[in-house]
Amino acid sequence: MFDNIIEKVRHSKPRVHCITNYVTANDCANILLACGASPIMADCPGESAEITSLCGALVLNLGTPSPQKLEAMLISGKKANELGLPVIFDPVGAGASRFRTDFAEKLLKEVKLSIIRGNLSEIRSLAGTSSHSHGVDTADIVSDSSIVSCAALAEKLSAQTGAVIAVTGETDIIADSSSAYCIRNGHPIMGSITGCGCMLSALMGAFSAVSEDMLKAAAAAVAAMDICGETAAEHLQPYEGNAACRNHLIDAVYHLSTEDMTAADIEKM
Amino acid sequence: MFDNIIEKVRHSKPRVHCITNYVTANDCANILLACGASPIMADCPGESAEITSLCGALVLNLGTPSPQKLEAMLISGKKANELGLPVIFDPVGAGASRFRTDFAEKLLKEVKLSIIRGNLSEIRSLAGTSSHSHGVDTADIVSDSSIVSCAALAEKLSAQTGAVIAVTGETDIIADSSSAYCIRNGHPIMGSITGCGCMLSALMGAFSAVSEDMLKAAAAAVAAMDICGETAAEHLQPYEGNAACRNHLIDAVYHLSTEDMTAADIEKM
Amino acid sequence: MFDNIIEKVRHSKPRVHCITNYVTANDCANILLACGASPIMADCPGESAEITSLCGALVLNLGTPSPQKLEAMLISGKKANELGLPVIFDPVGAGASRFRTDFAEKLLKEVKLSIIRGNLSEIRSLAGTSSHSHGVDTADIVSDSSIVSCAALAEKLSAQTGAVIAVTGETDIIADSSSAYCIRNGHPIMGSITGCGCMLSALMGAFSAVSEDMLKAAAAAVAAMDICGETAAEHLQPYEGNAACRNHLIDAVYHLSTEDMTAADIEKM
Repeated sequence: MFDNIIEKVRHSKPRVHCITNYVTANDCANILLACGASPIMADCPGESAEITSLCGALVLNLGTPSPQKLEAMLISGKKANELGLPVIFDPVGAGASRFRTDFAEKLLKEVKLSIIRGNLSEIRSLAGTSSHSHGVDTADIVSDSSIVSCAALAEKLSAQTGAVIAVTGETDIIADSSSAYCIRNGHPIMGSITGCGCMLSALMGAFSAVSEDMLKAAAAAVAAMDICGETAAEHLQPYEGNAACRNHLIDAVYHLSTEDMTAADIEKM
Repeated sequence: MFDNIIEKVRHSKPRVHCITNYVTANDCANILLACGASPIMADCPGESAEITSLCGALVLNLGTPSPQKLEAMLISGKKANELGLPVIFDPVGAGASRFRTDFAEKLLKEVKLSIIRGNLSEIRSLAGTSSHSHGVDTADIVSDSSIVSCAALAEKLSAQTGAVIAVTGETDIIADSSSAYCIRNGHPIMGSITGCGCMLSALMGAFSAVSEDMLKAAAAAVAAMDICGETAAEHLQPYEGNAACRNHLIDAVYHLSTEDMTAADIEKM
Repeated sequence: MFDNIIEKVRHSKPRVHCITNYVTANDCANILLACGASPIMADCPGESAEITSLCGALVLNLGTPSPQKLEAMLISGKKANELGLPVIFDPVGAGASRFRTDFAEKLLKEVKLSIIRGNLSEIRSLAGTSSHSHGVDTADIVSDSSIVSCAALAEKLSAQTGAVIAVTGETDIIADSSSAYCIRNGHPIMGSITGCGCMLSALMGAFSAVSEDMLKAAAAAVAAMDICGETAAEHLQPYEGNAACRNHLIDAVYHLSTEDMTAADIEKM
């Protein structure tokens, strides 16, 4: 299903413009380099459009927001739309504050997004069926019993926005308005690594930059992240924990091949 | 002495709101996840009160300050006071600039703090017996010969502020206005890891969120950090240094148990 | 050639003031601690001059710029000039946006720089012979065929600015207006670690703080970084990649000795 997407990234080395939070920016830069892409982090309104125009994709991440950063997101989002570049939106903490929720709504109105990736509570907030936030690293997660309703939620938000929706957690759902996939890879320790979601959204930037099909690009990035999470967990020494696992995870992306991607447990719903 | 504090954190998974510096924010988030807590980093005045109100504790860290971030600290500090949430203050670099020293004084006046943790020169600056700063990662440290005068300093600052005071370094002192503890664990390499102090303050946030007794919560966090530093140093390969040790340290917190905590060399003064 | 520069740093523990980007600030702090220096990250105009005056060197890094950070760079740069402290400039992304290019020009006019370190496209931008940016982590690099013209470019920019120029990549050139050195150490994986350039510029801050000769200080920092990159690559397990290598690299600096420095393949051009 994923063609040779990872090889395509390694070959064309797309530049990915990230307007992102300062908590996980380093990890996002390193995972982009690991997959063969070239990161540019820049969040100043005075240069963001120009930086976007040098790149193959734009990733907007709502963590540690500031008015300046949000202004840069709108400017760069519109520039990316003008140039036909993919725009990935990671609504970190949407639903946790009015400030974030309002901005997310504004962004959805003013910028055409290609992929939106969040945990269940963030996606619910965007779809207007919000619950209270459980923080940015944990959240009420997709379970086997809720999987059908979650896919319906994703399809609904996709119909509203035109974007591919990825709801990630223990089980991952990737959907557009007409079809949905479910991926059951990954490892529980990923929930204890800050920035797993941010890194995944960054990967979606790299993958979308070399793809025509945003649904496939998003699904491939989810599968890649999950498979690399499994590989990382396998390499853990008994005394190692979430910090070592973060490194192993990025390292697994560094070595990821098309063949590895065949381990994805992906199912059309 | 520490009851089952680490198990309590793992069980109740408190959300900890960190208004913190961008140098060590990633490590702070990962160490909070390692101990079972859920980090939320947010430093924008437009959302900080709302974020605080979702959390079980607030950690204010003075590294890489900006006027906006300091404004958010005051807003969130007051909200935490209103809600009865513990507030941890890490006066990174207090004494190094008038900007930081003045803000620290203002914060002490306007927000009731639960725990203040710093190195000796930072605590001296807050107590108004300042010396020149030796940077944010090293400082004149508590030695066996100065331990009694340092404890007196901590008790004095505690009486002034109502907060528990933790002066950390080679030897650590944790005091309120009436009693003081001394902890002699840890490892010298911790002085070469950026953010050891910041991570410790973050842990205090998690521990205080599940405690009634701030003195115990602060002492437990110091003991946990020191014991994990020792574990980390034991796992170092001969060619490894401060970067590996940082990872081993967070990993040790990931595996930390109540039984491990009994290794603490803690003494009532 | 390098005397005992690394021992000098470990002995005098210079404080290094970094006004730097949030993507790699943690790595810069840890590599400074690894070499024995003491990092202070501070980018607020309200305190930057005062922080600079506590330090032995100033490092200005153009990544993730904001108007406030650039204002702090000018203030601190002038203070460092007034005090006779070395100023290192890392023009991250110069040429990628008018915002960055304009600021770099302004800084060159208003502050006397001791060392400028960049990749080839950044140095070209500063010398007014710009090409399009290839992102901040990769760039058109110095090759054996272009080495003579690159050295000429560096010498020209040195004559214009009075600063030592370091053009780093696969092959590194360090030049002042009258002489140039070429260093052929390092490892290709360093191109996949975010912040290798930033960390090198931070090291130059530490080395310049204990040196009279900026050309030697810059060359020593390049040699140290390259040799540590080689050591780091040697320690990579087969499954490890850029994330592990970053840690091994900082760890190699932690263990670096004067004797290790003799492995430098340095040539006077």
